[in-house]
Amino acid sequence: MHRDPLDAVRSYRTRHAWRVLAEFRDLLALDNVTTDLPALRRNAAAVADLLAARGASMEVVEHPGAAPLVTGRLGAGDGFTLGVYVHYDGQPVGTDEWRSPPFVPTLWDGDARVPFPGPDDAVDDGWRLYARAAADDKAPLIALATALDGLRDAGLPPAVDLVFCLDGEEESGSPHLGGYLDALRGRLRADAWLVFDGPVHHSGAPQVVLGARGYCGFELTVYGPTRELHSGHFGNWAVNPALTLAQLLATFKDARGNVTVQGFYDDTMPLTDADRAALSALPPVEDPLLERVGAAEAEVPGSRLADRLMLPSFNIRGLRAGDVGTAARNVVPATATASVDIRLAAGDRPERMLARVRDHLAAHGCLVLDRNPTPDERRAHARPVRLTPSAGYPAVRTPAGSPLVAHLVRAASDAAGTPALTVPTLGGSLPLHALSTLDSPLVILPIANADNNQHAADENLRLANLWYGVDLFTLLLTRRPPR
Amino acid sequence: MHRDPLDAVRSYRTRHAWRVLAEFRDLLALDNVTTDLPALRRNAAAVADLLAARGASMEVVEHPGAAPLVTGRLGAGDGFTLGVYVHYDGQPVGTDEWRSPPFVPTLWDGDARVPFPGPDDAVDDGWRLYARAAADDKAPLIALATALDGLRDAGLPPAVDLVFCLDGEEESGSPHLGGYLDALRGRLRADAWLVFDGPVHHSGAPQVVLGARGYCGFELTVYGPTRELHSGHFGNWAVNPALTLAQLLATFKDARGNVTVQGFYDDTMPLTDADRAALSALPPVEDPLLERVGAAEAEVPGSRLADRLMLPSFNIRGLRAGDVGTAARNVVPATATASVDIRLAAGDRPERMLARVRDHLAAHGCLVLDRNPTPDERRAHARPVRLTPSAGYPAVRTPAGSPLVAHLVRAASDAAGTPALTVPTLGGSLPLHALSTLDSPLVILPIANADNNQHAADENLRLANLWYGVDLFTLLLTRRPPR
Repeated sequence: MHRDPLDAVRSYRTRHAWRVLAEFRDLLALDNVTTDLPALRRNAAAVADLLAARGASMEVVEHPGAAPLVTGRLGAGDGFTLGVYVHYDGQPVGTDEWRSPPFVPTLWDGDARVPFPGPDDAVDDGWRLYARAAADDKAPLIALATALDGLRDAGLPPAVDLVFCLDGEEESGSPHLGGYLDALRGRLRADAWLVFDGPVHHSGAPQVVLGARGYCGFELTVYGPTRELHSGHFGNWAVNPALTLAQLLATFKDARGNVTVQGFYDDTMPLTDADRAALSALPPVEDPLLERVGAAEAEVPGSRLADRLMLPSFNIRGLRAGDVGTAARNVVPATATASVDIRLAAGDRPERMLARVRDHLAAHGCLVLDRNPTPDERRAHARPVRLTPSAGYPAVRTPAGSPLVAHLVRAASDAAGTPALTVPTLGGSLPLHALSTLDSPLVILPIANADNNQHAADENLRLANLWYGVDLFTLLLTRRPPR
Repeated sequence: MHRDPLDAVRSYRTRHAWRVLAEFRDLLALDNVTTDLPALRRNAAAVADLLAARGASMEVVEHPGAAPLVTGRLGAGDGFTLGVYVHYDGQPVGTDEWRSPPFVPTLWDGDARVPFPGPDDAVDDGWRLYARAAADDKAPLIALATALDGLRDAGLPPAVDLVFCLDGEEESGSPHLGGYLDALRGRLRADAWLVFDGPVHHSGAPQVVLGARGYCGFELTVYGPTRELHSGHFGNWAVNPALTLAQLLATFKDARGNVTVQGFYDDTMPLTDADRAALSALPPVEDPLLERVGAAEAEVPGSRLADRLMLPSFNIRGLRAGDVGTAARNVVPATATASVDIRLAAGDRPERMLARVRDHLAAHGCLVLDRNPTPDERRAHARPVRLTPSAGYPAVRTPAGSPLVAHLVRAASDAAGTPALTVPTLGGSLPLHALSTLDSPLVILPIANADNNQHAADENLRLANLWYGVDLFTLLLTRRPPR
């Protein structure tokens, strides 16, 4: 048997596409919102079963108060060991309407719903599977399982061993991953850790990503009157916290899109020549992206997306005060709240960023508390605010130019049939900082389509991207990487 | 029979307080949210029955698509006729928790729940009845009914005739009141119209109010990407509409609390000497008010509430974008919305104010639309926004110094046993503009306690204020006003 592994697995996955989709559907039908511990336990068990069925020895580890970490090994453990990181939890589903319910996985061909295929039905690579976590991040699990099935079907044994780290808290910022890794360190040795998450490049090209941004965030609540007041009898005499919040938020950026928090960019690693070379090799994506998001221009008109991702960001994810629409009442609201996420570039530290935000608010007249103000504090200070920080982690960046990176770029290029891009950082955040404490090189290999609506309503995976994932795993499993 | 009417009715209402409260409870148990037409129809019927039971000839008039107007007369129609305006609809109940459900009327003595009294139970004037519309604005209906019952019990016939205009749309801005009045003009002739709504003065003194502010408002929606985007992959490249909204709202006021919309104060009638005299005769209320609302200072530190009410106001009633709290997702929101109400001072015109707001937004780079932007508009303009105006009406102000006003001030003073204040305008808005087309003097006679939590959770009426209302109606019914 000297069949080409890629040919063999492609033939297998074409013949068995209906079976792959049925298994994927079952996995996606398990609701997996990152705050729902009982649901995450069900997912952890299903994910362990999925890989155990392919011969891996799997274990579901659970620390108190944390979603389980699913770990395990495939192979004798004496060859080159690739670490595989995937997360099985998903974002909340939000209030926007989905075209099909988030946990009723549904195939769509453009705007037409397609029944799940049977054994004799053709499957179109342009179809998309809609469900929460279809792209972020259950797709790699099905891709890996399918690659293993195809290799077994062809009688081709893997040339590398695998070790798994399957996270159930990524969408919550992986608050317990470090603790899990500390406890399991001896079992998680690998020659490299590959993180399967995120989308391919906006141009559609495959990408090998050498890092991801870090994360921190905060919720800011501004306090007005102790209870809502009639806006006619008190409006414009009493302080309106919604206006105060708007005024405070407006101070965070200047007209050119720069964050005005003192020192916000100070810790960010400057670009190296290699970074600049990689960035300038990336194809332009901005015009089609603007068309896709339906906007006239970027926040900084003419800016390149890839350049913006090398900097920390400040994003308002939500605002709440009083009510709008038919529920709106003529009141001065009692509080106003904003939720903000900050993406950290390499070099930035979450706690330093949050301290700078606190200083910024204090410089704008706020008494910054980590709890509700007391009645005395409200009577003594004009602007008591509560800042509730979110768990954060720093960015991670692996240097370009190593033989391992070149090996991965070749695998991605061969799997996709088109040259893969080398990208210094993903815009999104991944808990790579914890993984990086395992002291192996870390590389991200995204497989989802760029327009997968990750984190939003109508998350979806294009089937062609699932097949790319199967092919990529096939090559990673059968080509021995350089040491 | 030459009993003093006030003595007679006070004796009656003391003996029958339990019966008054039972009738009030039944009226308040009818939910009356201003957007709920079927509920408003039930309220209209109950209100008509309430006064018909006191000998009035009542009629429920209903125009298509509008809450009913309840009208009617009491008396032969050959004497001095007082018009009585009350509204029977209530504000939405909001999402804040109430100490007792808004449509389960409940008596409270401080923080202790009190059972409704029976015929032999004592009733404390300091108790409060909690329910939506207890203060705003069903209390005057019960006060009037009780005054009529007490006079009948004492064998004292009213010295004036009454004509009723009981509005079911006040909390929606009374969009159809003008149409109703046009249709019913012949039946609504009165020598003066008295509007029973709003709270007494913050000092606790009774007040005779010579006007109310007008109203207009708008909802502003800012558009970002056509759907929510992942904040890591797109944040700070794509425009964030929540930030744009905050930036826009921050432009509406300067640091001194002045609205910066060009011409915002231009139409407001300047203060007359009489206004200044009335304003300076009002007792200071600001320190206890700040203590009550739990704030350190007013929006304009040191400003007097009564002075601020002589100006138009700009109040943010609500903000919405993405989500906060545990529902927050790491996205760039697709839209951000603010709901704003503007209180108009005498002289201001709603349509001119809204035009100025539109101009202000346009001057800050917005393409101001009255509908969602088209895809082409979103691609062509950096800041397409939707401005949805709310129905509005101008303020009304009756000049001070007439014999009628003096008569009313005497009645309020005698009913309360303490001198009544003459106040140029109520901070709140009332649809007095439509009533003013009836060409009679208009005066507002508030009876609710100042801390009634009008429009908010835990709306309540202090029983002492209900009794003040009964006494005030007693004097209005039995003293013949000057022509």
